[in-house]
Amino acid sequence: MTRAFNFSAGPATLPESVLRQAQAEMLEWNGVGASIVEISHRSADFMAVAAAAEADLRTLLSIPDDYAVLFMPGGATTQQALVALNFAAPGQVADYVVTGHWGKTAIRQAKPYVSVNVAADGEAGGFRDIPARGGWKLSSDAAYVHITANETIHGVEFRDTPDVGDVPLFADFSSSIASESIDVSKYGLIYAGAQKNLGPVGITVVIVRRDLLERAGQPRADIFTYASHAARDSMLNTPPTWNWYLLGLTTKWMLAEGGVPEFARRSAAKAKLVYDAIDASGGFYRNEVAPAARSRMNIPFFLPDAELDARFVAESKAAGLLALKGHKAVGGIRASLYNAMPLAGAEALVAFMRDFQQRHG
Amino acid sequence: MTRAFNFSAGPATLPESVLRQAQAEMLEWNGVGASIVEISHRSADFMAVAAAAEADLRTLLSIPDDYAVLFMPGGATTQQALVALNFAAPGQVADYVVTGHWGKTAIRQAKPYVSVNVAADGEAGGFRDIPARGGWKLSSDAAYVHITANETIHGVEFRDTPDVGDVPLFADFSSSIASESIDVSKYGLIYAGAQKNLGPVGITVVIVRRDLLERAGQPRADIFTYASHAARDSMLNTPPTWNWYLLGLTTKWMLAEGGVPEFARRSAAKAKLVYDAIDASGGFYRNEVAPAARSRMNIPFFLPDAELDARFVAESKAAGLLALKGHKAVGGIRASLYNAMPLAGAEALVAFMRDFQQRHG
Repeated sequence: MTRAFNFSAGPATLPESVLRQAQAEMLEWNGVGASIVEISHRSADFMAVAAAAEADLRTLLSIPDDYAVLFMPGGATTQQALVALNFAAPGQVADYVVTGHWGKTAIRQAKPYVSVNVAADGEAGGFRDIPARGGWKLSSDAAYVHITANETIHGVEFRDTPDVGDVPLFADFSSSIASESIDVSKYGLIYAGAQKNLGPVGITVVIVRRDLLERAGQPRADIFTYASHAARDSMLNTPPTWNWYLLGLTTKWMLAEGGVPEFARRSAAKAKLVYDAIDASGGFYRNEVAPAARSRMNIPFFLPDAELDARFVAESKAAGLLALKGHKAVGGIRASLYNAMPLAGAEALVAFMRDFQQRHG
Repeated sequence: MTRAFNFSAGPATLPESVLRQAQAEMLEWNGVGASIVEISHRSADFMAVAAAAEADLRTLLSIPDDYAVLFMPGGATTQQALVALNFAAPGQVADYVVTGHWGKTAIRQAKPYVSVNVAADGEAGGFRDIPARGGWKLSSDAAYVHITANETIHGVEFRDTPDVGDVPLFADFSSSIASESIDVSKYGLIYAGAQKNLGPVGITVVIVRRDLLERAGQPRADIFTYASHAARDSMLNTPPTWNWYLLGLTTKWMLAEGGVPEFARRSAAKAKLVYDAIDASGGFYRNEVAPAARSRMNIPFFLPDAELDARFVAESKAAGLLALKGHKAVGGIRASLYNAMPLAGAEALVAFMRDFQQRHG
C-alpha cells in the first residue's frame, strides 16, 4: 500500500487515520453486528453518530446556538438553487458578487427563481482579484447577498468578511471551511460541500440563521425546504449516513489536531511555501492572482507553455504527487492544500517544482 | 467481528464480499496511491468505475438503449419532486395510485407543481391490497401515472406492471428493484434509492425513457433538470463517488450470483418461508395483506399485543436478528428480505419465530 500526496481539488485527500478507522469498522461498527452503512438512520446508534457530528462541527466552527446546522445529500450546487427557493420571494432581487467560476454557477442555479443583480464581477480582470467592497452595487431590497468565500478554480479567496449591512450574507465555503476562523454570526447562511475540508463526498453542510427559516420563499416541494430539514434534524428522508459518519470522523480529527486555529496556521504555512516557490522562480512558474486575494486552499499556476504544463503533470504524478493538473476552464497546474494535506506534501511539491525547473527551466 | 442477520428496511444489509472489498481498498484503490473516496470524479480512474456501474446495471436490469440511466445524490424523495418538475407542465394533472405510505409521500412532494389526481387509493382498506386496475380513475391528459412498486412500510407489492395506456408509467422501485424481472420498456421512468437492493445509502438510480427528457416541464434550476444530468453522465456536479463505487460493487456481485432471475428465485423462497411461518402460527403472528399483494421484500407482522411485539424485538436482537422492529407508522414487526439477505437469515428468523411462539404463545 502506497499513499501518495494527493493534491486533488475535490473529492480530496482525507486523513489517513480517518480512513484507517473507517476500514477497521467496515464489516462491523461499534459492536452492533453490522457496518454503519447497513444500519437505519433512525436507529439510536446512528442518531448518536449524527448528533456527535453536529456537536463537534459546532465546536470546531464556533457556531452560535441561533444557527441551525443541516447535513444535506449531494453537493453545493443544489444549495445554490435552494437558497433562492427558500429565502427570496418569486422574482425578488438577490445580489451576487462574482469572483470566479463558482459564483457564476451560483447565479445560473438561482436565476429561474430570483432577479439576479451582479453587484460586482471580477471576470473582466480575469478573476485575479476580489472586487473592492467600495465598488459593489448592492440593492437595498435584496433577499440576500451571495459570495464565494474561496474560488476553487481561479484560486481567489476572500480574506475578510465583507460588511453588507442588514441584508443577510450567504457564502459558499465549500473549499475553505474550517481552514481559518470566521465569525459565523456575520453570515445569514454558509454552505459547504464536505469533500474538500470536511471529509467525504456526497454530503453538504448548511449553517443557517434560524430566523431566516421563517421566510416564505417560493412554492416548492417539502424536500426542498430547509425549515423541514431543520425540524427533522436532517432526517426528513434517508440521509447519506456513511458520508455523515465519515464527516464526523474527520471533524473529530480536526478537533484533536488543534481545531481551526491550528489548521489556519498550517494552511498559511503550506500556502506560503508554494507561493514563495512560484514567486522565486524568476517567472518560470506564474500565479497571477493579486497577492492579497491569493487562495490558501487552491493554488493555480502556469509554466511557460502548455507542453511544459503537461510534462509537469506527468512527472509529478510519477513522483507521487497526484492530481496536479489544472481545471480545464483555466488549464495549467493546480495544487489544492486542504486541511488533510500535511506540510510534508507542500514541501514535497516545492522540492519537485525546484527540481523540475532545474531540468526544464 | 460478529455479523448478525440484519433485517433493516434500509439502509440495509450488504453482501459481506462487497464490504470486504471496500475495506481492502479503503486506504488505496487500484494502485492509484489514494482511496477511491479521495480521487476526482472527473479522473479517468473514477470515470471508468462509473461507466462500469452503469453498464453492469444495464445488463442486470436489461435496460433498453433508449433509456438513460442516472446516478443522483440523495434518496427517492427528491425524485418525487423532480419527476413533477421535469415532466409535467405547471398545474398539469398527474395520476397517482396510492398503495401505502410512500405513495402519499410522492403526492406530497409533487403537489406544489401538479394537479394531483388520486386514481386509486388503498388507504380505506388499511393498505392491505393493490386496488384492482379496473377501478382506477385515470385522467386522459395526465402527464404521467405514478405507482409505488413495493410499499416498504405496509408490505404491499405490485406483482404485475399495470397497463395504463399511452400515458407514461412512473414507478418508485426503491425497495424491490433487481429482485424480480421487469420489462423496463413498460415504464416511462423508474427510480430507486439504492440503500435496499442496490447497495449503499446516499445515491439513487433513475432510469428514464430518453424521449421524455425533451419535455419542457416547469421553470427550474439546471441542477433539478434530468436532461442536464443525462447530458453530463450524472456528473453535472460532484456526484457521491464512494456510494456510486459501492453500488457498482454490489451490482457486480448480483451479476456474479446469477442476476435478477436468481434473486427472484431467492426472494420468493425467503418470503415463502416467513409467510408460511406466519400463516401456520394459528393466529399468533398476523400479516393482514391480501396474499396476492404480499411483498416479497418487506413483511410486516403483528403478535397478539404490543407487549409481545416489544419482547419479540428485544429477544430477536439478542439472538442476532437485527432491526426487526416495525415502522412507527404501523407498529409490530417488520422483516426486510432484500437481495443481500441470505436464505439462512430467513431460516434463522423462522426458527426464532417458532421458538418464541412456543415460549410465549
